[in-house]
Parts: sequence; C-alpha cells; structure tokens
Amino acid sequence: MKMAQKLFALVLFCPIFMVSANEPMLVEKQEFVLPNYTTVGGETIAEVRIGWEAYGELNEAKDNAILITHFFSGNSHAAGKYSAADPLPGYWDSIIGPGKAIDTNKYFVLSSDTLVNGFPHDPNVITTGPASINPATGEPYGLDFPVVTIKDFVNVQHALITELGIEKLHAVVGASMGSLQAIEWAASYPNQVERMVSVIGAGAMDAWTIMALEHWARPIKLDPNWNGGDYYGAQPPLEGLSHTLAMITQQAMHPKIMNIRAPQQETLPAAGLESVLNPLPATSYLFDAAKMRASLADANHILYLVRANQLFIAGHQQTLADGLKNIQAKSLFMPAKNDLLLQPYLAQQAHQLLLEQGKQSEYVEIEGIWGHLDGLFSISTEAETLKNFLESE
Amino acid sequence: MKMAQKLFALVLFCPIFMVSANEPMLVEKQEFVLPNYTTVGGETIAEVRIGWEAYGELNEAKDNAILITHFFSGNSHAAGKYSAADPLPGYWDSIIGPGKAIDTNKYFVLSSDTLVNGFPHDPNVITTGPASINPATGEPYGLDFPVVTIKDFVNVQHALITELGIEKLHAVVGASMGSLQAIEWAASYPNQVERMVSVIGAGAMDAWTIMALEHWARPIKLDPNWNGGDYYGAQPPLEGLSHTLAMITQQAMHPKIMNIRAPQQETLPAAGLESVLNPLPATSYLFDAAKMRASLADANHILYLVRANQLFIAGHQQTLADGLKNIQAKSLFMPAKNDLLLQPYLAQQAHQLLLEQGKQSEYVEIEGIWGHLDGLFSISTEAETLKNFLESE
Repeated sequence: MKMAQKLFALVLFCPIFMVSANEPMLVEKQEFVLPNYTTVGGETIAEVRIGWEAYGELNEAKDNAILITHFFSGNSHAAGKYSAADPLPGYWDSIIGPGKAIDTNKYFVLSSDTLVNGFPHDPNVITTGPASINPATGEPYGLDFPVVTIKDFVNVQHALITELGIEKLHAVVGASMGSLQAIEWAASYPNQVERMVSVIGAGAMDAWTIMALEHWARPIKLDPNWNGGDYYGAQPPLEGLSHTLAMITQQAMHPKIMNIRAPQQETLPAAGLESVLNPLPATSYLFDAAKMRASLADANHILYLVRANQLFIAGHQQTLADGLKNIQAKSLFMPAKNDLLLQPYLAQQAHQLLLEQGKQSEYVEIEGIWGHLDGLFSISTEAETLKNFLESE
Repeated sequence: MKMAQKLFALVLFCPIFMVSANEPMLVEKQEFVLPNYTTVGGETIAEVRIGWEAYGELNEAKDNAILITHFFSGNSHAAGKYSAADPLPGYWDSIIGPGKAIDTNKYFVLSSDTLVNGFPHDPNVITTGPASINPATGEPYGLDFPVVTIKDFVNVQHALITELGIEKLHAVVGASMGSLQAIEWAASYPNQVERMVSVIGAGAMDAWTIMALEHWARPIKLDPNWNGGDYYGAQPPLEGLSHTLAMITQQAMHPKIMNIRAPQQETLPAAGLESVLNPLPATSYLFDAAKMRASLADANHILYLVRANQLFIAGHQQTLADGLKNIQAKSLFMPAKNDLLLQPYLAQQAHQLLLEQGKQSEYVEIEGIWGHLDGLFSISTEAETLKNFLESE
C-alpha cells in the first residue's frame, strides 16, 4: 500500500473501529424456573426462579461455556448493556466481550442471579428468597424461607446449565462471593469444571470474616421496622439496611480511593460542633448513597446472604483440606493486594492447600488503590493472566 | 568477686529481684474538679470532674512530668494496680514503671480520664458527660451536653497540670485517641510540651476514618431504647451499644490475632443452617464479650467520643499544615504496621508535614500481629526507641 492509500484506510476505518469499540454488547435478561429445589439443609422450595444472561454463542459441542458467579451486592449483569441507553455496562465489561480476556468470540459466557439476591427490588434482578411469595401461603416467606448456602446457589446454577445441555464448563469465574461459588463448583461438580478462577476470594470463612459479616446483619436486626423479619406490607427497615449497605461500601474500599472520592474535612465543620446528631461531609457522602440504594434491597435477603457467606467452607467436609480433595479443575487465585475485607491470606490458604494436594494452581495479586473493589475495577490489569489461564490446557 | 560469692549474691538477690519485678506498682485514683469549663464550641459546663492517677514523684523543679493520654475505650489506668489483687495492671504497664521505658524513677507520670469517657459506669472512671447530672437541672444532661473536641480534653488536662504547678511537660504520650490528644497538646500549648509521642495515631481525621467512626455511632441510634438520647432512668440501648463495642474490638484486631483467639469453624455448624438468627461460634465469641462490657459503657458518651474523634484536626486551623505550624516539641510517631483502623499513612502524613516545616520528627513502625492493638500490646518491642527519645535533648 502506498502512503496515500494507508492514510485513506486509516481515515476510513478508524472511526468505524472506534464506533465499534464503543458500541455496547446488548444482552437480554432471561428467567430460569426450577419447579422444586431441595436445599443442603433438606428443605424444599417450590418454583425457584433466578435470572440469567449470556454473551457469545454456545457451540455445537456445548463445551465452550464459562460461568460467571456474582459478588454479594451484584447480580447476573457482568457485561454488556440491556439497552444502548444504559449509563454503565455490566461490572466486568472490561474483561468480557469480543476479543477481551473472556472472549465472547470464543466462549459462551453466562451469568445468573443467585438465590436470596440482596436487591430483589432491582427491576433487573430475578431471585427467590424471603421476599418472594410462598406458593403454599400466597404470602412472602419472610424468615420461613430456609437458610441457603453457597452450595445451594451452585446447585441451582447447575440445574440451569443442565437445562441448557451443558455438561462441562470451560471455566467458572467469580469475584468475592462469586469466588466462593466458583470454588464450590469445582468441589461439588469436579467432573464438570475444567478451570476455576477465584478473584478476591477465599476457600472458607475464617473467624475474622464471619464476624465482619455479622456486622452487616446487626444494623438490620436493630431497626425496629425489621420486626423479627415480618415487615412485608409495612414500613421496611430502611435505616438499618442503609447502615448495612454503607458498611459494605466502606469495607470494600481502601482509604486510598475513599479519600480521593469522598469530601475531605480540612477545617473543623461548624455543624459537627453543634450537635452529635448533625451529619458531616464524609458521613453524608457515604450514607446518602447507601440510602438511595436501600429501597432496591431487601433486609431479610441481606441476612440470608450474610448467613450463606458465614457458613461457607468449600466442599462441605470436616475440614477445608478435605473439601478441596475432589477438585480436578486448574485453579487461578487473584486476590487484591490492598484488600481489607477478604485479604490475600485467604486466597493464599486455598491455593497452598491445592498445591499440597498436587493440583495445578496459580496465584497472582491484583494491584490497585481500590482495596476489595480492585477485583472489579482493576481486574483488567491482569487481563492477560486471565486470558492465558483460560486458553491453557 | 569469687565464684562462691557470686553464687551467693545470685541466690540472695535473685528472688528479691523477682519479687520486686512481680510486685505491682500500687496507684491511687484521684479526682480533679474544675468549677467551670468553657468548650471550644463556646458552651460552659459547671463542675467538670475527671479522674487521674500518677506514678513516680514530681521533682522540686516540677519539670519531670510526662502526661499519658488515653485511647477511645481506655481510661487513666495506664500502669500499676489499684490493689495487689487486681487481675491486670494498667494498659501500658510494660513501658511505665521503675527502670522501664517511661521510667518512674526519673519521671512523674500522670494520666487522666477524658471528658465524655466511654465507660462512666466503670467504678474506676471519673468523667463528665451526657450521663452526668447537670447541676442546673438535677437531671442527666443527655444530648444537652455540649459537643466536645479533643482540644477540650486537652484543655481540661491543662487545668489539671496547672493546678499541680506543672508549667512544662517533659513529654505527652498517647495511643490512638490518646495520640490525637498528644499532638493537640503540642499544637495548643507549644511552649509547654517538649516531646510528643503519637502511638497508632494521626494528625487529623481523613474521610475514611470519619466514616469508620460513624459505623460505631449508628448501631446505638438504631436501638429503639436509645430514644433520641433520653434513656436515663429507663432501659439503656444495650443491644446497640454491644454492637458498637463488638465493632470497635474487631477493627482494632488484625485477622492474624483474631483467628488465633476466636473459635474457628472448620465444619459447617448445624445451628447456623437452622435459622439466620442462630449465633455462630465466632459471632458469640465477639458479641458475648461486647455485651459483658456494655453495662459499664454509656451510649451517649460513645456518641460524644465518636464525634470528638470525627472532628479532629490538630491545631484547629484552616488546614492540618497550618495547625502544626506552632508545634515546638520533638515528635516521635509509632504507628503499627498491621493496623487496619488508623493505618500508618495517617502518622506518615503528620510526620512528613512536621519535617517539611523543619521540625524534629522520628518515625518507627511497631511490628506485631495485633493490628491497631499492637500500639498497646506490642509497644514494649519499641521500648528502647521510646526510652531514647524521652532521654534525648
């Protein structure tokens, strides 16, 4: 090509390429219904409904599927947009899409809402939990809903992929609570999971994290509107719920990023001196945002999510080491170096146990200033690691 | 000395030395009354009472005094025992005493309770705050008590040392909230403070820490028994208060130590699967201990302490740099490397500003597995640093 032609090509294709890069991958939320599901605790739930979505195409052999499992405050929306007008794409759009680390030109990537999703009033969430109508009574379950575990989340997803005719997953990839589901998948269905990616994750809950989670449950139970879990049709416990959401946000963010985003208080604020009840700039920043999100959440759902996380130990055996014994998948652990919530030692522990059992496991720390949220917002810095891992035999 | 003599000396003195080392330094709690005190916010409080205690002797020149300022959940009891039968000595007994880093053979070491001390029902605490009787009404102040700042704590301590005839402090030394008082002393009374030691401290609150403190206040306000601060003579908000104390304990302890001390949960606990309301071993460990301490605390006092900490910026000027300009004292900052609450960057910030202003400042990180509490429990690993700093000109 001569220079003039090259230039012409550049002028011609460059804008097209740019439009193409900015054009969102459009996705559709779907519903999966399971007529009956019996929990790990032995209780049967009728008409379990969960939402799901997918990016890319399932191949004929149905062996190119990657399952994405979501974090505590998340849902199935991992990538793309439901409509071109959506302000933001799904949370891992930086790594899921055509030509990206999780390449939708190669893989059929699917993602589902969990049971007891924390935000059942989000119009894009489909879940079953305490706020759902119990078909037996025509009323919301409330605390009659059985306690569910991470393994129950996984079992329901298993029913979904079975219905889709998928017998083997190329990989299960999840961040935070999603990482618990990912490792549980590898432990519960060892023949069906080829690769497991645990981002900002753990193999089991330690005492410190069980306590940290308890701090998320208590404000809800302290709110008199919670009323022992029986508030449907009445005023929900939005004060307690807001406090819970504020605490989750804070624990997920390192001071480095929080102090960049939140208003600083260089000078002593006069309002703060007038009454201990007056808000301060930083507390308003955190709690006002939490309050806005609280109406989409359900307090009981949050309690059930907390409990599912608190009870987590991959494989449900006597010890974590026992629980990991069945795993056949190759593993990749990607904790965030500055994570203050699920610190890297938790991923290290599971990684080391797998290595001791002679299994293939890799470990890479994500760098960033977000803390726990580096697992979402800085994941693209390790896109190459992830891509290579998914392409490896 | 011949060998036989040496041996004799050893046999003779060793037990005496050992008894001497184990023999507690006995101390007496005293009361200081200030007939009137006007706060930074311009409100006057009548009959301010605070407790204090001292170790060692004030010399004739009255220039050998070291003031110890206490942390959020603490009180004046920094060293020694009130009675030989006390199970534990004061919190910094490892570094305060005859021949120790803060040598009571040389220094007159005094320590006072702050205003609005969090545990006014502890029989060893003397403080003035919302739970105190307002002499004007004969009723507890409740939320009529004026907001107080760390500078107010310092001003009341200043009145105490003035009454004792002390014009210059050899040093002010404090951990955590005590470090805020120490640096405020150096900024507010620059001619009267020769050395300032900030252990697990900060020069000002950043947005992240202001939010973290807010999480301590909210559970109290969520408890219906709090009743807008008006619960004296009725049921106090012990549920909310317990949650607050549990959260403080957790944030002050690194997972490394918490996971050694708290019960682990290797196997999924059956009770946790029965109901989301059932406690788990780790949550009982944390919350049962907090509940036991809650009856000694006062919920409103905790709210006032939270607010005093949230408003903190040393020197009360337009910026922290401005607030530090007056400081003449030599400074020593000792953050704890694994602190998850007041992380070392906060001490670094104040230390760097002082250096930029051409002042003498040292910086040493305390190693340990306790996290924030390394400032109390691992301080003796830096006893030599502290001793040298106190002896330096």
